[in-house]
Amino acid sequence: MAADQPTPLFERIALIGIGLIGSSLAHVARRDGLCNHIAVSARTQRTLDTARRLGLADSVTLDAAEAAAGADLVMICTPMGAYEAVARAIAPVLKPGCIVSDVGSVKQSVIRDVGPRLPEDVHLVPAHPVAGTEHSGPEAGFPELFQGRWCILTPAEGTEPDAVERIAELWRRAGMTIEIMDANHHDRVLAITSHLPHLIAYTIVGTATDLAENLKQEVVKYSAGGFRDFTRIAASDPVMWRDIFLANREAILELLGQFSEDLTALRRAIRRGEGDILMDVFTHTREIRRGVVEAEQD
Amino acid sequence: MAADQPTPLFERIALIGIGLIGSSLAHVARRDGLCNHIAVSARTQRTLDTARRLGLADSVTLDAAEAAAGADLVMICTPMGAYEAVARAIAPVLKPGCIVSDVGSVKQSVIRDVGPRLPEDVHLVPAHPVAGTEHSGPEAGFPELFQGRWCILTPAEGTEPDAVERIAELWRRAGMTIEIMDANHHDRVLAITSHLPHLIAYTIVGTATDLAENLKQEVVKYSAGGFRDFTRIAASDPVMWRDIFLANREAILELLGQFSEDLTALRRAIRRGEGDILMDVFTHTREIRRGVVEAEQD
Repeated sequence: MAADQPTPLFERIALIGIGLIGSSLAHVARRDGLCNHIAVSARTQRTLDTARRLGLADSVTLDAAEAAAGADLVMICTPMGAYEAVARAIAPVLKPGCIVSDVGSVKQSVIRDVGPRLPEDVHLVPAHPVAGTEHSGPEAGFPELFQGRWCILTPAEGTEPDAVERIAELWRRAGMTIEIMDANHHDRVLAITSHLPHLIAYTIVGTATDLAENLKQEVVKYSAGGFRDFTRIAASDPVMWRDIFLANREAILELLGQFSEDLTALRRAIRRGEGDILMDVFTHTREIRRGVVEAEQD
Repeated sequence: MAADQPTPLFERIALIGIGLIGSSLAHVARRDGLCNHIAVSARTQRTLDTARRLGLADSVTLDAAEAAAGADLVMICTPMGAYEAVARAIAPVLKPGCIVSDVGSVKQSVIRDVGPRLPEDVHLVPAHPVAGTEHSGPEAGFPELFQGRWCILTPAEGTEPDAVERIAELWRRAGMTIEIMDANHHDRVLAITSHLPHLIAYTIVGTATDLAENLKQEVVKYSAGGFRDFTRIAASDPVMWRDIFLANREAILELLGQFSEDLTALRRAIRRGEGDILMDVFTHTREIRRGVVEAEQD
């Protein structure tokens, strides 16, 4: 290690799954010397070959347990539907004192699916780096993905503070600002800021795919009027999003109920020509936008 | 006029209303010497003062008829709900052979609201420059707004070809590519590419405004996960959009019916844990995105 490199945070990091988030984290680890060894496991040899070619892995394997063995950090970066199986597979080989973390968009389900399967001498620190693009796979990753974004940690009460701090420091090095939050609260916030928008975008683009072929071509042609933003959102990884919707089912269904009511009210106002009702809603939504712009999220 | 300036397309252009689109067109007219005089009318003296200050008007008036008198092009750039009143006001003073056009996002309603009020020796060429931002008002305009975008013209059958060509040339000079389309077809295409996306964005941001105050602050904070794109769309001018939804009521209501059915199907799949149904929809939506990217709309 060069003298000007910071001390590695971990000796061996195991990345279980290496899509957009996993590969971006690997880029950061390489750039900043966050660890001495990156072990990568994936479901296909092709993904492993790609990870190797990009210089993101010191060792690769199709077996999650093999990657996790001896690691002081196991970061689960698979779609959330695979978490339980991953936890079962790695549990027997985890090093005492090892930290298990993840990058999923739902956090209660991690505590439910992963927590009970881990040995007692292992620390679970669920994390959600709130960052992404519509692209997926190991080639989509880049080290600046996390820069200036939030990372939300949702450790259960009583989690070893040192373990939480090490995960916080990892994401700080990636450029993120850390928030600690209750998992239930996280899932409700993300349901509105991310999960519902994605579900709606998938729906509206899906509605368009059912249009007559001649109309569909023109929809693509004139997509700049608003539809284009939805197609970008609806191009995100299907497996990842299927698993998110199923993992955060309750919060999403509750919110969908409210959204459907609100949409029905607007639909009724349009049908009846009640412009005042439309104006009222459209004026209020501007306030939220002001908040977003002021929060420098833009 | 300088020797290297192209020949003006019009002697006198009247802009009835000068928001984002009107002011951007005025910038283009100034930049390229498209006319010798820009007459601007608006509802408030403040808007007229701004137009003057920005150098976008040679004459200003609160009276649409005064602006339109003697113009060889009258461009209606108000919210669509004002079209009928504008048409009534300007009809008596229009110069024979004058062209009346507009920039609205719905086109059948122009033919319905404006057409019957104009004298027979005046040419109506409804137009829709498909361009915009979430900002509004005369200070939001800039000459590059139209560059590389589509402009859809929907002249009624039998419209004087020279008049159509002059409007086409105006928007070509602004950097747009021209399409001629049936007004009914235009309204159906735009309902899906623009009107429904805006309505949905308004709804989802409206749903968020009803959340408990502590949750709302966090929604703003973590908006990068998808919600932010919706807030941008839902920050568009409320009056303009109220009028669009009312003007294109039928096409929007029909589409909303399909959208609601599709959303209900996804909701049911989430509730029942039917991941295959979700995967099927999410995989198909990627195809539309590919089309959009290939069409170089992005």
